[in-house]
Amino acid sequence: MKLTHFDDEGKARMVDVSEKPLTKREAIAIGSVYMKPETIRLIKDRQISKGDVLGVARVSGIMAAKRTPDLIPMCHPLNITSVNIDFDIDENKSKVDIKTIVRITGQTGVEMEALTATSVAALTIYDMCKAVDKEMIISEIMLLEKRGGKSGEFKRIKSNQK
Amino acid sequence: MKLTHFDDEGKARMVDVSEKPLTKREAIAIGSVYMKPETIRLIKDRQISKGDVLGVARVSGIMAAKRTPDLIPMCHPLNITSVNIDFDIDENKSKVDIKTIVRITGQTGVEMEALTATSVAALTIYDMCKAVDKEMIISEIMLLEKRGGKSGEFKRIKSNQK
Amino acid sequence: MKLTHFDDEGKARMVDVSEKPLTKREAIAIGSVYMKPETIRLIKDRQISKGDVLGVARVSGIMAAKRTPDLIPMCHPLNITSVNIDFDIDENKSKVDIKTIVRITGQTGVEMEALTATSVAALTIYDMCKAVDKEMIISEIMLLEKRGGKSGEFKRIKSNQK
Amino acid sequence: MKLTHFDDEGKARMVDVSEKPLTKREAIAIGSVYMKPETIRLIKDRQISKGDVLGVARVSGIMAAKRTPDLIPMCHPLNITSVNIDFDIDENKSKVDIKTIVRITGQTGVEMEALTATSVAALTIYDMCKAVDKEMIISEIMLLEKRGGKSGEFKRIKSNQK
Amino acid sequence: MKLTHFDDEGKARMVDVSEKPLTKREAIAIGSVYMKPETIRLIKDRQISKGDVLGVARVSGIMAAKRTPDLIPMCHPLNITSVNIDFDIDENKSKVDIKTIVRITGQTGVEMEALTATSVAALTIYDMCKAVDKEMIISEIMLLEKRGGKSGEFKRIKSNQK
Amino acid sequence: MKLTHFDDEGKARMVDVSEKPLTKREAIAIGSVYMKPETIRLIKDRQISKGDVLGVARVSGIMAAKRTPDLIPMCHPLNITSVNIDFDIDENKSKVDIKTIVRITGQTGVEMEALTATSVAALTIYDMCKAVDKEMIISEIMLLEKRGGKSGEFKRIKSNQK
Repeated sequence: MKLTHFDDEGKARMVDVSEKPLTKREAIAIGSVYMKPETIRLIKDRQISKGDVLGVARVSGIMAAKRTPDLIPMCHPLNITSVNIDFDIDENKSKVDIKTIVRITGQTGVEMEALTATSVAALTIYDMCKAVDKEMIISEIMLLEKRGGKSGEFKRIKSNQK
Repeated sequence: MKLTHFDDEGKARMVDVSEKPLTKREAIAIGSVYMKPETIRLIKDRQISKGDVLGVARVSGIMAAKRTPDLIPMCHPLNITSVNIDFDIDENKSKVDIKTIVRITGQTGVEMEALTATSVAALTIYDMCKAVDKEMIISEIMLLEKRGGKSGEFKRIKSNQK
Repeated sequence: MKLTHFDDEGKARMVDVSEKPLTKREAIAIGSVYMKPETIRLIKDRQISKGDVLGVARVSGIMAAKRTPDLIPMCHPLNITSVNIDFDIDENKSKVDIKTIVRITGQTGVEMEALTATSVAALTIYDMCKAVDKEMIISEIMLLEKRGGKSGEFKRIKSNQK
Repeated sequence: MKLTHFDDEGKARMVDVSEKPLTKREAIAIGSVYMKPETIRLIKDRQISKGDVLGVARVSGIMAAKRTPDLIPMCHPLNITSVNIDFDIDENKSKVDIKTIVRITGQTGVEMEALTATSVAALTIYDMCKAVDKEMIISEIMLLEKRGGKSGEFKRIKSNQK
Repeated sequence: MKLTHFDDEGKARMVDVSEKPLTKREAIAIGSVYMKPETIRLIKDRQISKGDVLGVARVSGIMAAKRTPDLIPMCHPLNITSVNIDFDIDENKSKVDIKTIVRITGQTGVEMEALTATSVAALTIYDMCKAVDKEMIISEIMLLEKRGGKSGEFKRIKSNQK
Repeated sequence: MKLTHFDDEGKARMVDVSEKPLTKREAIAIGSVYMKPETIRLIKDRQISKGDVLGVARVSGIMAAKRTPDLIPMCHPLNITSVNIDFDIDENKSKVDIKTIVRITGQTGVEMEALTATSVAALTIYDMCKAVDKEMIISEIMLLEKRGGKSGEFKRIKSNQK
């Protein structure tokens, strides 16, 4: 078992993917922002009427997917070909669920892009609502599925999203 | 109760802080990365010998604190004066705890900087270990404390970190 | 009459503002995107129902205001304290008018921030509608008003916006 | 007629271009900066002798072409293979015309890169001359030609540049 | 003797400057690019006639000064108030000398900004001439002078620039 | 002999590489940071025990390789596939040697990426040690080897590194 981001002497490196073939790849990441019932209602109501917290969060997440190699030191720069971010308001559990799908035809996977987009969308929800609810919690950010590439398919058996 | 990042017609905006005085501010954010016991061990062992997952994650988090206004749409650009990131390996619960303290003398708070640094440090841990553990979960990212500014002190009563 | 961004030998430089006092400053820039009547209608309809071209354009403009010193070589880095972007759909002239207000307490003005935000909001409108209308024209990007600083108030006598 | 940057529920997205073939593409964008005759003369004179407004504007435009996906939310990250920016001083109409050609072999077009480079070059001209002329107007930024890709060739019938 | 960018346990950090007063600061950095006599001549000739290697290098250096905190992990974000870059062509020693002056009124010094601007200007000279001279060497990048702040004045006794 | 970054009229441009085939390319750049014997010892000791100047410098250099097209105006944006940075402490000559290898399969070379990574790693060493040694000198940054592409192999005959 080896951490590939280090060489044999333990020095951090950007792993060499020069020899890997171009394949179609997809990664799906999820995460949730827990908040007070009033905050959930505020997000929901404004979405219907005028303000749009989730619209702004979606834009920030899509832009962050493109910034991933600027943020995560050992990530390869990639030309991702698609990003979709979905939100689901779960009033019972008083949380907003986030799901991001990223696609590419490339030499390496897009898990980090999907996870980064999800995290930044969550942070933006926090920022836009923090005036009314500082206790929000960002949780359960994880990889749900991954397709393509040598390591093959990954599918998490269960998550706490519907 | 109002979302200040929207005006009366629901249009997103960067809130005007021109009139706010410069005050000393501090924010502390925390978060955790849950992983397999083998992954925890790998991080711990390499830290002692050669590779250093947490060292790289710390650098990425400090750099991300400075990139916060580039990532979070309505965040004000700020000249933060201090960032400290601490990691605590909790083998019992098989997780790495992250704690970030950000300071500034400015017109607005640094909660988003502390939360963003924590999130990016967590994402970097994921990236550096994902070759051996794709099921890691980033959770409980939250504001622990906040000082300075008109809204005064905030202190979360309890968290799941020691 | 002198171009201050060059020294006496004609070399480009970032003008020294070290000695200038901190004063309250504001700049208002405007601009318009001309398009086909059908495109105007599409923007208007989707705004009411589901899609929101202007919402995305507003976020991009606000973020671009913060990136101004990264884009315009001789611009000073600044911590702007407020950005507001307004859109007005003018069906008669088949155009969308953009108006951006930027504020700061600083040593130099924020004209470039207001003009850059306006330009990037216009470019985003183009991007989001180009699948249906490649002939859109971005025009009349200009400074409308400016307050604060040694050079005093500037107010354009007339513009083609209402 | 559909805005492709939104899905069927009106949510903004980065359109999926994973399945599109790599083809050679080119986009040409133009724009103009109107200014006082004295400002035109200042630009022209200094270009001959020492200062070089247009040289700085050209560098800023080329760099901005590369930053397009950082600025325009739904733009795909692209590895453009060529950027050329030309200026033409039109003393009769007291304006500087800008023309940008961008090329790539890729899955999506480079219209936004050409338009963004043109806009930022225009903004830089404004910045470098604003000490002597705050009334400059940036106008007629538009796509002139486009080649390659499924939507085929686009050629604007006329523009106000020579 | 202590490396201030590490705490007592050896963890990297952004040093806390919250308590330091705002003072006027200046840093001067220098560096040289050694090249073949033909390359020197090419730079010199084109500067007189049409192409302008040093003009492009100057713009890149000024922009890099502003990007310093994005590049150097423990650097504080700063609003520098002035950047000047000078080139001196030394035909005898077949090198181009670079000198950068950066100023600020702030809580911390601008040495890194001056050194980064100098390095990036040198790299740009390399890039623009590498088609004719791959053997160029960038050397003697160093701090020449520094003023302001608690650590007081620093002045290097001699350098190999005139 | 021609500077390819300028067209026939001397205007700077990003050279058109659209027609060039994708080939495997590699570039190796080196550089050195000269410092006081005490500073060398401090770096060496902390590396063994707790602080890790070179670990932070390595991360900054790898990240800078990815930022090269943002910094060097005429550089093409590239998706580099590998970055490795090595340090060698030379106590005799009281310097730290840096060696960077960058790889890609692309239409243009990665010399600038290797040189930029080396320069930024050197600047980070300076930054982290400047509290104890302001007189450090960054020198002999140069291309050591280059493979792939039309211009073929380049190999510097000698350097002052072991």
